[in-house]
Amino acid sequence: MKKGPISAKDREDTEDTICRLIRDRIRGGLYHAGDKISSVREMAQQQNVSIASVLDAYRRLEMEGVIQSQPQSGFYVQLMATRKFANTAIPEPPRTPMEQTQESIVGSILHDARSSNVVHLAGASPNIDLLPTGILTRLMSRALRDEALTSMSYSSPVGIRQLREQISRRMLAASVSSVPDDIIVTNGGSESLSLCIRAVCQPGDIIAVESPTYYAMLLAAKTLGLRVIEIGTHLTDGMNLDSLRAILDQYPIKAVVLTPSYGNPLGHLMPDENKAQLVQLLEDRNIVLIEDDVYGDLGYSSNRPIAAKAFDRTGKVMYCSSFSKTLAPGFRVGWVIGGPYQQKIELIKFATTGSTSSPQQIAIAEFLAFQRYSHHVRKAVKVYHANANAMAKTIRSSFPEGTQAQKPLGGFVMWITMPPEVDSIELYKSAIHHNITIMPGPAFSAHTNAYQNCMRLNCSKWSPEVESAIKTLGKLACEQVSAFNSAKRLISSAVNR
Amino acid sequence: MKKGPISAKDREDTEDTICRLIRDRIRGGLYHAGDKISSVREMAQQQNVSIASVLDAYRRLEMEGVIQSQPQSGFYVQLMATRKFANTAIPEPPRTPMEQTQESIVGSILHDARSSNVVHLAGASPNIDLLPTGILTRLMSRALRDEALTSMSYSSPVGIRQLREQISRRMLAASVSSVPDDIIVTNGGSESLSLCIRAVCQPGDIIAVESPTYYAMLLAAKTLGLRVIEIGTHLTDGMNLDSLRAILDQYPIKAVVLTPSYGNPLGHLMPDENKAQLVQLLEDRNIVLIEDDVYGDLGYSSNRPIAAKAFDRTGKVMYCSSFSKTLAPGFRVGWVIGGPYQQKIELIKFATTGSTSSPQQIAIAEFLAFQRYSHHVRKAVKVYHANANAMAKTIRSSFPEGTQAQKPLGGFVMWITMPPEVDSIELYKSAIHHNITIMPGPAFSAHTNAYQNCMRLNCSKWSPEVESAIKTLGKLACEQVSAFNSAKRLISSAVNR
Repeated sequence: MKKGPISAKDREDTEDTICRLIRDRIRGGLYHAGDKISSVREMAQQQNVSIASVLDAYRRLEMEGVIQSQPQSGFYVQLMATRKFANTAIPEPPRTPMEQTQESIVGSILHDARSSNVVHLAGASPNIDLLPTGILTRLMSRALRDEALTSMSYSSPVGIRQLREQISRRMLAASVSSVPDDIIVTNGGSESLSLCIRAVCQPGDIIAVESPTYYAMLLAAKTLGLRVIEIGTHLTDGMNLDSLRAILDQYPIKAVVLTPSYGNPLGHLMPDENKAQLVQLLEDRNIVLIEDDVYGDLGYSSNRPIAAKAFDRTGKVMYCSSFSKTLAPGFRVGWVIGGPYQQKIELIKFATTGSTSSPQQIAIAEFLAFQRYSHHVRKAVKVYHANANAMAKTIRSSFPEGTQAQKPLGGFVMWITMPPEVDSIELYKSAIHHNITIMPGPAFSAHTNAYQNCMRLNCSKWSPEVESAIKTLGKLACEQVSAFNSAKRLISSAVNR
Repeated sequence: MKKGPISAKDREDTEDTICRLIRDRIRGGLYHAGDKISSVREMAQQQNVSIASVLDAYRRLEMEGVIQSQPQSGFYVQLMATRKFANTAIPEPPRTPMEQTQESIVGSILHDARSSNVVHLAGASPNIDLLPTGILTRLMSRALRDEALTSMSYSSPVGIRQLREQISRRMLAASVSSVPDDIIVTNGGSESLSLCIRAVCQPGDIIAVESPTYYAMLLAAKTLGLRVIEIGTHLTDGMNLDSLRAILDQYPIKAVVLTPSYGNPLGHLMPDENKAQLVQLLEDRNIVLIEDDVYGDLGYSSNRPIAAKAFDRTGKVMYCSSFSKTLAPGFRVGWVIGGPYQQKIELIKFATTGSTSSPQQIAIAEFLAFQRYSHHVRKAVKVYHANANAMAKTIRSSFPEGTQAQKPLGGFVMWITMPPEVDSIELYKSAIHHNITIMPGPAFSAHTNAYQNCMRLNCSKWSPEVESAIKTLGKLACEQVSAFNSAKRLISSAVNR
């Protein structure tokens, strides 16, 4: 930019540049609500432009409601501008395929999660105290001792036969009939999902997911160069099938990926009839359904829900699950039923991780064969249900008015919607100073700042420490609301002075 | 094609068509050596062309040595034609990026490898009897008992700190200096490679690899939509750097992926000065080097080779390794040093497999810290060296004349080049009937029928069963040569009758 006589076009460009600069400073957190911005003279000097151009730019920003002039004082950042640029709550996700931007959030939380002495409410890990650790330890030690050759050797890429037989039997609980050869053992549910997506999709393809959705799913899509469309999802209905239908009419969707039974983060359940409809809808259009059923056994009601896969007549439903939420997250054992994509999945699995850890496979197969799997899981689920109730109650009493703690129908994560004044990423940052981690809402959408006032909390445990952490979180959220209201008052008094 | 008066051009086209047809029938296995092909009259009728055109085509094929006329009888397929079209041994791989076709070979062998009662010479598994099974079993049982919480829980996606510290120390043996934070623990070497490739490459990119090369590498490239160029590789020099330079001048290579120390299947070693040159060459062109060092500790000479990573000054060398060849293949524990791609790798790892099995990480960390890793590995390597010598000797005495068993410089796989009359895929098929598996040469190249007369054998074990299996393979290979010679005699007698 240069001083001196300039054309109208140049002057307009300069004005644009100044406006963008101010917006970026607000967006980047350099200017907060109520802050005085650089004076017209300072800005003109800093940017080496005319005072008239800066004045034009500031007037435009004032008209837009970004800043406000105060006579004999200068220009101040409007309260709503910080919300406008930094935090936009989106009630229904925008219906366009987008690139994900939440990787930095999840990335930094993964880093923080490494430190100990922290109340970890961010993860979706089951309560280790409720897992059959003793039995599994014994079975694994026995596998290593009595089946040393198998334990030490590479297993087949598809997994150990004995485990595939047991899994095939377990699948009957979800009304899915299968034979052992239908099943490929994986390094946990993440690998199951990743294999299915890679078998079906090419970079650039669009997949439809639930909203809010599991962040690792969004990361998987991102790292594979896929675009995602998020479909609104509700506690008792699951994915909105009308929205889905509209999206299918509009975009060439390659696959629909969802967790219909106690999905993460909502803990929602899609009713059987909706599952049947969903399968039919996709079957009619020859679109693949990838079902993630890792929480399927963890419902609070007594009936185990039927898997969407059970309604599959053409083999277009791919089924993913794991033992990470029920038996042992650290063992990394899951499975997938790929139907017509089975062979492709096997090759990708072989090329990606070779095979799954052998001793774990033997131990889990033994557990399924001779221990009471359902009994152990039901026992844990009762505790999850009670803990979820206790957490929801404490949230109601400690969080700002208007906070909604949505009690899940199964599993052990809870979705909290706070008043719009609360920014969950800011809450995360202040919580970590109190040695508490949470998973902020924006992690669950590919859209920048979606679910900004929401968060997911792990409710698998309930202890004095967790109760105290929840109260601290509530206090921090209340502080955000108060700070917001103070800033509002400050500005309104400044403006009226 | 039409009858009647035709131009010289048309007649030439017809002649081409007929020639192509005959070649295709030979290539497709419809005509074998010595078979009588369709008579001139039959062919003219079938193809609705003139007898003169067919006669021209047949004469051309005769001149090319594809068929041979026998007066008053007809035209017969020449012996060498079947080799010419069906099986072309390629001394230096064609220098063009190609799609891989070897997945079906590897796929079916993976299936066969599941059956028991088989002498498995196909895999690249270490000899389980030589692994420190007892100690590892004890350490893992202790980890499960004493560190139950860590063992049962998800580890961080980058792995357990304790293990990363030990790995970082071990890296000094390869002259690589690193800190624990440089290291990400993986589900074995396959995941390490796959993560590096995914972090660096986009579908459609071209990578350069050794030739022959590890088939899982080709599968990984294939499943990621990459194209590969294979660079000739030799026992004592490793990848031919002149060829590589020429390729880099010609193609936009995104990454070079290689196993410079005791690579699979050759067991070759690239000298230190070549490694330095390679790193410099790629550094100058800003191309990533992905080094697979899984066999680096398994050299038969007393000095552990320096890793190419040790010559890295700009962080463009990504280093992959694992404990699958040295401690426990079934444990699925490897690692990667991703340099500037570290954070990207961490996210892909998180989205793909979440994390690596926890109890194994603890057990291996303990092993590295308190057990004599080098001592155990050196003991095993001595046996591998002796077994490789024994196998090479038996091959020399039982295989057809002209067979070359290339003694590896480290590791436990051996590359066998048989006379051109032997087809290793046929050998695989007949061997499986004798309960023996081998890995046929074409699995190690993306080019159809490359290394057709080669195979890789596992030489980690030497026992009466293995010796007998080698003799059986030798007998089967000799039978192929005899059958070839009989067919040759049959035809020549038919021709001279």
